[in-house]
Amino acid sequence: MMATIKVHGSPFSTATQRVLVSLYEKELEFEFVNVNMGAGEHKKEPFISLNPFGQVPALEDGDLKLFESRAITQYITHENPDKGTQLLCTGKQMAIVSVWMEVEAQKFEPAASKLNWEVFYKPFFGLTTDPAAVEENEAKLANVLDVYESRLAQSKYLAGDSFTLADLHHLPNLHLLLVTQSKN
Amino acid sequence: MMATIKVHGSPFSTATQRVLVSLYEKELEFEFVNVNMGAGEHKKEPFISLNPFGQVPALEDGDLKLFESRAITQYITHENPDKGTQLLCTGKQMAIVSVWMEVEAQKFEPAASKLNWEVFYKPFFGLTTDPAAVEENEAKLANVLDVYESRLAQSKYLAGDSFTLADLHHLPNLHLLLVTQSKN
Repeated sequence: MMATIKVHGSPFSTATQRVLVSLYEKELEFEFVNVNMGAGEHKKEPFISLNPFGQVPALEDGDLKLFESRAITQYITHENPDKGTQLLCTGKQMAIVSVWMEVEAQKFEPAASKLNWEVFYKPFFGLTTDPAAVEENEAKLANVLDVYESRLAQSKYLAGDSFTLADLHHLPNLHLLLVTQSKN
Repeated sequence: MMATIKVHGSPFSTATQRVLVSLYEKELEFEFVNVNMGAGEHKKEPFISLNPFGQVPALEDGDLKLFESRAITQYITHENPDKGTQLLCTGKQMAIVSVWMEVEAQKFEPAASKLNWEVFYKPFFGLTTDPAAVEENEAKLANVLDVYESRLAQSKYLAGDSFTLADLHHLPNLHLLLVTQSKN
């Protein structure tokens, strides 16, 4: 019997959501351990022993302890090729998945997460949105989305004909962007 | 016969260097196509068709076209398991390699590359270093290196007992940091 996977994180964290979506897509059972970030639990033991950088999420699978959401989703998908949605490709096509996973991490996420911080999280926490930061990151995100528009005119999903981890990694930030844009 | 790998990039770019180091470690032959960034070649055709974001490096291997340095190094190492240095692990140990590749990309590189821009590239291009940016990124980098010091007290390399892609990805920025620190 496999040990139950434990996800330590916060439902408010897009990085935690990224891991949860991958577990749902792979139809895996898991235990969710809530890390109370308001109380600073992510900066203290026992969590800090799971991730020395003090950021959610972290994963435990038996003796294996992982952090960094994209490393966790890759572990989950590589370990469970026959469960749920495929999410990965083989051979050279996997290299294309890697390219677009890097684009999400290096291009999409920095702009999208700063924008979501200003437009979604700051009002949620009673803080004041900085219009200059909104404008700057909307412009950066628009440049990224221009590239995506060209790409998605040629292929159904970012890495080709099927939905992969490259698409999945965008979902938490994309969801927040859609929620906040619909208010504007 | 395999098609010759073509690397399009600039020797001044740490991301290009990351790909070159992986090719040397795997003992692969390749053709280097210089992209003259001073002349803005990375923002124009033909390069912009290789990477729509207009950043070096890009790789061509027959019909396959890739960009994003860390996607390229992963492709090179996955495709050539029996050549040169191993650089990857199997099973659960590969998940640990992924964690530390993410740490390099998300934590080390942002601070190290901004610091290298201020301390190495700006003087090189005749621009003025911003002391506040140096101080800010030295502090960020120091926090990351504190975690590395603890990690490397427990394991010989970042992901375990052997040198992997997680270590390799650090080399170009680390080299510049060592060069500039030795002057101070």
